[in-house]
Amino acid sequence: MHPRTGLPVVGMVGAGQLARMTHQAAISLGQSLRLLAAAADDAAALVAPDVVVGDYARYPDLADFAAGCAVLTFDHEHVPPEHLRALAAAGHTLHPGPHALRFAADKQAMRERLSGLGLPVPQWAPVIDPEDVTAFAGKVGWPVVAKAVRGGYDGKGVWVLDGVAGVEPLRAAGVPLLVEELVPLRRELAAVVARSPYGQGAAWPVVQTVQAGGVCVEVLAPAPELARELAEQAQRLALTVAAELDVVGVLAVELFQTDDGLLVNELAMRPHNSGHWTIEGSRTSQFEQHLRAVLDYPLGATTLTAPAVAMANVLAAADPAPLSLDERVHHCTARWPAVKLQLYGKQPRPGRKIGHVTALGDDPAAVRADARAAAAYLAGERE
Amino acid sequence: MHPRTGLPVVGMVGAGQLARMTHQAAISLGQSLRLLAAAADDAAALVAPDVVVGDYARYPDLADFAAGCAVLTFDHEHVPPEHLRALAAAGHTLHPGPHALRFAADKQAMRERLSGLGLPVPQWAPVIDPEDVTAFAGKVGWPVVAKAVRGGYDGKGVWVLDGVAGVEPLRAAGVPLLVEELVPLRRELAAVVARSPYGQGAAWPVVQTVQAGGVCVEVLAPAPELARELAEQAQRLALTVAAELDVVGVLAVELFQTDDGLLVNELAMRPHNSGHWTIEGSRTSQFEQHLRAVLDYPLGATTLTAPAVAMANVLAAADPAPLSLDERVHHCTARWPAVKLQLYGKQPRPGRKIGHVTALGDDPAAVRADARAAAAYLAGERE
Repeated sequence: MHPRTGLPVVGMVGAGQLARMTHQAAISLGQSLRLLAAAADDAAALVAPDVVVGDYARYPDLADFAAGCAVLTFDHEHVPPEHLRALAAAGHTLHPGPHALRFAADKQAMRERLSGLGLPVPQWAPVIDPEDVTAFAGKVGWPVVAKAVRGGYDGKGVWVLDGVAGVEPLRAAGVPLLVEELVPLRRELAAVVARSPYGQGAAWPVVQTVQAGGVCVEVLAPAPELARELAEQAQRLALTVAAELDVVGVLAVELFQTDDGLLVNELAMRPHNSGHWTIEGSRTSQFEQHLRAVLDYPLGATTLTAPAVAMANVLAAADPAPLSLDERVHHCTARWPAVKLQLYGKQPRPGRKIGHVTALGDDPAAVRADARAAAAYLAGERE
Repeated sequence: MHPRTGLPVVGMVGAGQLARMTHQAAISLGQSLRLLAAAADDAAALVAPDVVVGDYARYPDLADFAAGCAVLTFDHEHVPPEHLRALAAAGHTLHPGPHALRFAADKQAMRERLSGLGLPVPQWAPVIDPEDVTAFAGKVGWPVVAKAVRGGYDGKGVWVLDGVAGVEPLRAAGVPLLVEELVPLRRELAAVVARSPYGQGAAWPVVQTVQAGGVCVEVLAPAPELARELAEQAQRLALTVAAELDVVGVLAVELFQTDDGLLVNELAMRPHNSGHWTIEGSRTSQFEQHLRAVLDYPLGATTLTAPAVAMANVLAAADPAPLSLDERVHHCTARWPAVKLQLYGKQPRPGRKIGHVTALGDDPAAVRADARAAAAYLAGERE
């Protein structure tokens, strides 16, 4: 218990923008997140007082951090699984637990488990030697998609291969791989849900995610013109994954929509870029919901606050306009007084996510245009 | 500028719940408030990293604090006016400035100024000796209301006097007083607006405030069944006060509604209890709006996110039910999944504001009932 507030202390491993926005939500619940940060100027460490600087890959750092927390949660999936298991064995409460996080950190384990549950996934195969890729491509046809089993994000750790020649450099780099069919997708969707330790589930409307270069650039909520049956199928699928894998907290299921239906692409067991729109767009944000689940509180209402919501990431421009961020905020708030900003306190390196914006309204096309334009402006894009 | 974010540093004098919620809003703008706190466990100091513990009544503490800030703002009106003037004279930017804050801190100066502007105020008189009260009561009739010129809040510093006998103890205590008619009010309203240094104004819908024992217990937004002309008059009045007094930031104008119209009761030049509902109930909260004004950003949209919003304060029960706050949150979130909580991290002493709740929906009576019941439950009231 926190000595002052009498409430349980939530520790979050990681102090990036997800932790930053989780801390922001925690304040409403009388909480203040304890953070294990890599550096004192991590995005969340700039806004929260209870910060331990340490290395999430070192067990002693994790154990020291866990000692003062009632429950541990995570803003990324990079903690070594053996450390997670050791923390749980030492009696610490982890939400989600090691048995669930395994499937967010290890794509092969995830593919095996979801296939075993009979859930729709792309055709895939494990890769031991280059011959496995050739054999798989012989079945599904080139190109195929090679994926690092662990550690990929934002398009990193994913390679489209036109032939077997592409495999050897990856193998030489020592990256454990799997291979998947290149799915003929119509678009990408995400079903974001939350689950409490008690087993209560809550789903937000299914969204469309728009990627550029493997990086999410926009999220449209609800997904425009998505058939009701597909939306319900996606929500059921995500709630099934949450229950079967015993996830506690937010679960984001990234989906491919094809002519034949839905396929699961990735899982994330934490607040996720595809749920940022919920900060203003839903009665309960994904960050508050994650905390409610982690604290074993009942989940909040997921009703929308507007018929159409669009989120656009602010990806720092490669050749930014010669204006300070402060000047950009000034002009952006003047031009779009109803667009909501989230700036992460991060240094703008080209392509880096330094914030996001959310537009809300009645007309999906109009809110998307506003969000996109405001984000480009904040990013420093020239006309 | 903040060395990391490149944005101006906002310093807030005071670290109570208003500063806590302002810090929460600041995070979205890429900011992290710098706080001058009375103690390291003040409500805002529990959730923000950049805290200086010092005494707002000591000039050296204020000057040291101001040195690192691009702009200073305030979560209360208790800084001695001579210190405010000295800070401004030393070249610091204060929003609102000393010339405006004077009218929030000194009721006599405020009454004189508003009377001079021809704005509707209760009949009042300055008090030099008890005979002034007798003479004033001879004009308006007993009872009359004596008010401390400085330092009152939440019903403190206000006394209803049935006769001259009540005056002497106050005079003996050395409290500078003024006296006002006891207004035959139908209800209390508040008009909350914001104004930027540039002079841009923005108004939220006028709300009804419900008091018990001089303390605000509920706020209903918009004020139920308020005639459109009165609502517009109240908004115009508040925007006029903001402009004439050169307020920068949020201005709350507390109003009496009588059979004859509106009278100004009090002014506050900071986020105010009557605006807490805007956190979820408006596209731009009063806390974000205050920061936008203080940072000289254009103001945000004040549209409602639901037709009816009710806020109820959580006032710690005198004889609380034997449940921890954590247990109360658990049950409250189960019973009212759509009610939003704000807990301040404060120790529950009887009658102390330890948080508030907000309910949103279509039916004013239903949201009011939900907010009231949820707040009573969190407060530890027995059935």
